[in-house]
Amino acid sequence: MKYNEQGLIPAIAQDSVTGEVLMVAYMNQEALALTIESKHAWFYSRSRQELWHKGATSGNILVVERILTDCDADTILLLVRPKGPACHTGERSCFFQEVVEVESETRPRGVGYVGPGIA
Amino acid sequence: MKYNEQGLIPAIAQDSVTGEVLMVAYMNQEALALTIESKHAWFYSRSRQELWHKGATSGNILVVERILTDCDADTILLLVRPKGPACHTGERSCFFQEVVEVESETRPRGVGYVGPGIA
Repeated sequence: MKYNEQGLIPAIAQDSVTGEVLMVAYMNQEALALTIESKHAWFYSRSRQELWHKGATSGNILVVERILTDCDADTILLLVRPKGPACHTGERSCFFQEVVEVESETRPRGVGYVGPGIA
Repeated sequence: MKYNEQGLIPAIAQDSVTGEVLMVAYMNQEALALTIESKHAWFYSRSRQELWHKGATSGNILVVERILTDCDADTILLLVRPKGPACHTGERSCFFQEVVEVESETRPRGVGYVGPGIA
């Protein structure tokens, strides 16, 4: 894996059932190792400058089913089963804000990708 | 939007029909502006140090339907309709490599998320 100058790599957590992109955070080597070992998503919190077991306090852990990387190995994609909302705001996914309204003839109104499994 | 020290923000491109995460690249402010204006994904190529109209040469453009950001506005999520394989390797998605085999009782073998719309 290719880590950046801070020793970090971006990691996307995607719901393995619904396909929703839930959140993006960063991992260092240790966080990746802990993720592989525990099958829970661990990240490195840049703001707190420490390892972060996502959901350890809230119970909203991400159970990791598959760990993928891209063609140049500088991004991680986790396929996960979330045990609760992924966002600290209580939203299912952190991606609930539109940057700008893009007029789309093909895409119905809505936020993000909502696949099977969403009521 | 919160750009990093290099003036860049990571942008995830997700297929708006299938839910597959296709690729991750970086945008600067100009790339985001061009994306909004043209409804095609533009990025900033860190290796070539220049703006990059994804697919302009190959025809494998990403038509942008929706532009989302996360709770702390430091990541962009594009919902797109790809006009061809997103990866320069010819793969549909750049995320075709497993980092490590994670034994999963719930997830069938396969690479990434494959939602409706995939034959």
